[in-house]
Amino acid sequence: MARVYNFGAGPGTLPPEVLEEARRELIDYQGIGMSIMECSHRAKAYQAVHDEALHNLRQLLQLPQDYALLLLPGGASLQFAMVPLNLASAKDTADYTLTGSWAGKAAKQAAKICRVHTAADTSGERPACMPVPETIRASDHPAYLHLTSNETIEGTQWKSFPKIEFPVVADMSSDILSRPLDISRFGLIYAGAQKNLGPAGIALVAIRRDLAERAPASLPSMLRYRDHIDNNSLLNTPPSFPVYMLMLVTRWILKTGLENIWRQNQEKAALLYQEIDRDRFYQGTAHPQYRSAMNVTFRLPSEALETQFISEAEEQGLHALKGHRSVGGIRASIYNAMPHDGVKQLCRFMADFKNRHSNGNTPG
Amino acid sequence: MARVYNFGAGPGTLPPEVLEEARRELIDYQGIGMSIMECSHRAKAYQAVHDEALHNLRQLLQLPQDYALLLLPGGASLQFAMVPLNLASAKDTADYTLTGSWAGKAAKQAAKICRVHTAADTSGERPACMPVPETIRASDHPAYLHLTSNETIEGTQWKSFPKIEFPVVADMSSDILSRPLDISRFGLIYAGAQKNLGPAGIALVAIRRDLAERAPASLPSMLRYRDHIDNNSLLNTPPSFPVYMLMLVTRWILKTGLENIWRQNQEKAALLYQEIDRDRFYQGTAHPQYRSAMNVTFRLPSEALETQFISEAEEQGLHALKGHRSVGGIRASIYNAMPHDGVKQLCRFMADFKNRHSNGNTPG
Repeated sequence: MARVYNFGAGPGTLPPEVLEEARRELIDYQGIGMSIMECSHRAKAYQAVHDEALHNLRQLLQLPQDYALLLLPGGASLQFAMVPLNLASAKDTADYTLTGSWAGKAAKQAAKICRVHTAADTSGERPACMPVPETIRASDHPAYLHLTSNETIEGTQWKSFPKIEFPVVADMSSDILSRPLDISRFGLIYAGAQKNLGPAGIALVAIRRDLAERAPASLPSMLRYRDHIDNNSLLNTPPSFPVYMLMLVTRWILKTGLENIWRQNQEKAALLYQEIDRDRFYQGTAHPQYRSAMNVTFRLPSEALETQFISEAEEQGLHALKGHRSVGGIRASIYNAMPHDGVKQLCRFMADFKNRHSNGNTPG
Repeated sequence: MARVYNFGAGPGTLPPEVLEEARRELIDYQGIGMSIMECSHRAKAYQAVHDEALHNLRQLLQLPQDYALLLLPGGASLQFAMVPLNLASAKDTADYTLTGSWAGKAAKQAAKICRVHTAADTSGERPACMPVPETIRASDHPAYLHLTSNETIEGTQWKSFPKIEFPVVADMSSDILSRPLDISRFGLIYAGAQKNLGPAGIALVAIRRDLAERAPASLPSMLRYRDHIDNNSLLNTPPSFPVYMLMLVTRWILKTGLENIWRQNQEKAALLYQEIDRDRFYQGTAHPQYRSAMNVTFRLPSEALETQFISEAEEQGLHALKGHRSVGGIRASIYNAMPHDGVKQLCRFMADFKNRHSNGNTPG
């Protein structure tokens, strides 16, 4: 089969040139006589990969020196626990904004570790919304405020971030490096790699160094940011192949330019939302003001039509458009590596499908 | 450069046919039009990989149904914390056998979580030893007894395991599936994948199901075996490419046969130890009774000769023979995927090197 356009929410599509390069050197990495997978994490060849991955990320995030950058195993889900374990004691209160499935999961894990205060809750609103930064009700002395910058299931995204005097912590798993970022607004950001950065199996954490000092020495080393900082993310054997892939992907982002990536992402999203808004056959599920540029979610007039839409799209090489099982509908994830052409083809298919299924005349 | 023989202690060498297969389908996995890395962990293609990886491991470990099998991120180092977090409370005592660097690391992390009793300590003995099972001094009511089945740095290996009435927990990172195992002797075993099972980024845990019930519900889900069991190791997005590689490697072990692997491993180790024991030029660092079949450690008459040995070996395609930085000397790691021919070539090189550097007549 030819390459499909993969609209899956994650693990997501990767740039074909990155996959080609990985294939080219899979068995003999740069003439060392072995795969990078087989290479010791203390050997020069891997060290260069590790250092370049961190260096590329630092450059793309424009990370000041007072932030440490880590590559950690376990994805964002482990960070749901590591953030409160490192930044709060059992008596502390951490503020959480509840904006959808992923924010809810983060808050649920934090509640096992410290007190959790709901600083904003838009999770029940339909169309799906994000909080207005000004309406956030902070608790008295929160250890931090947590937010989820993009909700993959609800298809919403924070468009501007709250500016407050205590640390903001953000789960950026689904929109990291899809747009320029002012890191100084955040005390800590984290992101699983498998959407915009590479394959699954690794998470990026950028943390203001002073915050890493909060963690007690009694915290196990693998869960303690400070220990990972002291060891340059080599406290244990790192997931070296995912790190290598992340290095290739960040190299590709640098070559393309983050501003270009962001412009392309906006164009791709605009095309899709335009197709949705043309009339009432397709119904976007997110409030237009908070629509995600990464996960475009919409409904059709009936579930039967949705099933047919997904199956016909699949036949045309437009893959994994099924919405998350918890909400149904359609979801087109258009991460950095989704080509413009993939979105154009999806739009064409949407127009065609509508023509064939709205009895000749478009409602609305 | 041609393929080298990689004697590194981990990440270790992989079977060439496994790497070839991974390369063949890296960009288009089984005709699905994308890489397995890009495939959703909820999609059929990945589910089949995940299920086969678990199934192969179950078969190779001959795991009874009252044991759960997990694939978890973070390697063995995260298990140093997860084991006591799940199996002991802060008031409980866990017994640890101190046999070298890795056992020491496990005990150090456990001491952050519960009381730790030293049930045996051979870590200072030279030549390096393992405890005689009969001499283990257990505490009164230990939550479990922890041991490290193979010490990669000291080059020692447990040859028979203690039979006791409380659960035995074993870190088997460096000899998992190198020999048949009677799992019923253990309450829990864990192993990082990067020596005998695949690339880095994943750990195997086999746990007797009743032990998983000990963990409090307040433990964060990603750290709680019970939550992973309930989700078939899909609690979060798994490190899907490492799981895929592990599937290929376990398929290769099944095809070769674990008994054959074990016989080959014994033969390879015997060849090397024979070469070491031929006279006094090479000095094994482990007591003959506890010599590891995975990591063969030895010294030369001087550090200068060791440096020269490593560098000349490297030129002949015998790679990564340097002993761990904490102990020096030479270490040849001969995991499952090290071919017999690699060991033969190393033996030939050792004989030749000795002839050239012992002034024409071999001492001893």
